Amino acid sequence: MVAVGFVGLGDMGSRMVPHLLRANHRVSVFDVVPGRIDAMTALGAVGADSPAAAARDADVVISAVMSADIPGAHLGEGGILAGMRPGAALAVLSTTTPAMLQSLASQMPAGVHLVDAPLIGGVRYASEAALTVLLAGSDDATALAEPILDAFGQVVRVGPLGSGVAYKLITNVVVMAAEAGLREALDLADVLGASYQTTLDLLARGPMAAVVKRALDRDNPRALRDSAVDFDVLLAAGGEDNLPISAAGRRRLWAATEATSPPPVFVDLTSHATALPRFRNEPGRGQAGEPGLHGE
Amino acid sequence: MVAVGFVGLGDMGSRMVPHLLRANHRVSVFDVVPGRIDAMTALGAVGADSPAAAARDADVVISAVMSADIPGAHLGEGGILAGMRPGAALAVLSTTTPAMLQSLASQMPAGVHLVDAPLIGGVRYASEAALTVLLAGSDDATALAEPILDAFGQVVRVGPLGSGVAYKLITNVVVMAAEAGLREALDLADVLGASYQTTLDLLARGPMAAVVKRALDRDNPRALRDSAVDFDVLLAAGGEDNLPISAAGRRRLWAATEATSPPPVFVDLTSHATALPRFRNEPGRGQAGEPGLHGE
Repeated sequence: MVAVGFVGLGDMGSRMVPHLLRANHRVSVFDVVPGRIDAMTALGAVGADSPAAAARDADVVISAVMSADIPGAHLGEGGILAGMRPGAALAVLSTTTPAMLQSLASQMPAGVHLVDAPLIGGVRYASEAALTVLLAGSDDATALAEPILDAFGQVVRVGPLGSGVAYKLITNVVVMAAEAGLREALDLADVLGASYQTTLDLLARGPMAAVVKRALDRDNPRALRDSAVDFDVLLAAGGEDNLPISAAGRRRLWAATEATSPPPVFVDLTSHATALPRFRNEPGRGQAGEPGLHGE
Repeated sequence: MVAVGFVGLGDMGSRMVPHLLRANHRVSVFDVVPGRIDAMTALGAVGADSPAAAARDADVVISAVMSADIPGAHLGEGGILAGMRPGAALAVLSTTTPAMLQSLASQMPAGVHLVDAPLIGGVRYASEAALTVLLAGSDDATALAEPILDAFGQVVRVGPLGSGVAYKLITNVVVMAAEAGLREALDLADVLGASYQTTLDLLARGPMAAVVKRALDRDNPRALRDSAVDFDVLLAAGGEDNLPISAAGRRRLWAATEATSPPPVFVDLTSHATALPRFRNEPGRGQAGEPGLHGE
């Protein structure tokens, strides 16, 4: 049994804590939303009233917050770093920039180890303990974290501190280009007066089948805004000039996010509600089962 | 036995004609490159000295030329249309614009049927008769063409004339965003000083596995310039304003095409020769088996 602190009980974290409990670890949890803590204590976790409290006495602390929330969760009086004891390890699972990791590294208390361990796979994979964990850091630090992170799926060691998020961002470029490209394909369907359903059926026959399946998988939802935010992190790390396809994808995902209220989950990228504004209000276009091309 | 004319014996056409010969059709072939005709007559096809001659007496004419070559192959004295007899059908397999199809339709001789039948799948699929053919046109026209096109894989009827190329372009958006996104992921690897090999290994674990596998499949090569040209056709049909991700992808693929001489086949998109200019001449970066991230 290891004492684990877990901060960030969102879509991913809330599905990961149960695996730690099943492995008989003692898990102390914190989230800014109290209801999320209650859901975990009902399963056997111990609630904490701050990130520092969740980190106190832990051998390994796991943080799974959004990139923008990293400073708030880790720094200051109530932050994770303030609670950690020498010899313990902190694993940051967030999709963030190498620069953010380095900034955190420069503020670590003496004797506390830091690894980055971003995740590949969505909530379905988190539920099924089938994530790929990109573990990065010194040998000492990764040796402490790996037996715990192992509960979430397969751990792949990729290099020194920061290389986890680097490879996560790099692989995100392709995944997100494909996801945003799916929205752009449906935009072209609107331009040409074609059917969304036929488009998705045809895409499911080719090399993009896995991408379409994932986009339509209601057991693997993802807030569209989270995908847009991930694009922001990607561009912050790589630069717009270097990543013009991602920059265009980011703009399209933000437009889709802002097109509907509440913002759609990712699966709804395939709905007409996220179309370009001039097509959005044309009834009968872009509907599943629509007859097909017009004007022939 | 049906009399078939076949014009355009490039990467795809040269792999499709043998299936027609095996089905015991009489196949009359033409290409602007004489050696390509010889390769097919060696298998039992009949050589013709113009597109019109290949089309003469044919029940079904198939054209598989690049979009830009459609006017030259089809129009004028020696063009396909000039050779066709009433009651015959012309199937255009090119990835072209709906507008080009409509232009061709407006110039068809009386009584000659036109379908569009673009292909999903690369040369590996053409060799294995495993293409998906998106067949579009009137009932009469598709009925004439389908038994012949059937030799190339699975025929899917998608709607009226022009809808074949429309759906081909629509599905191309996602496929090409993913392919150009793969190049952009490697660009980010260069920015962050990461390894191409690790990047490709990690991508092969996720939903993009099929895309990576296809990009690395040396039995399914594709001239990078052809992919760039397909982007040109896509943007011509859909408009840059509607398709900003594709527009960025097109620019990146043309940059990659022009970075090396001769232009690389698609598989080489994963090589350092197609990197952004400022990284291209840095020895040791972006090489397979490279140690990994720098500066930790």
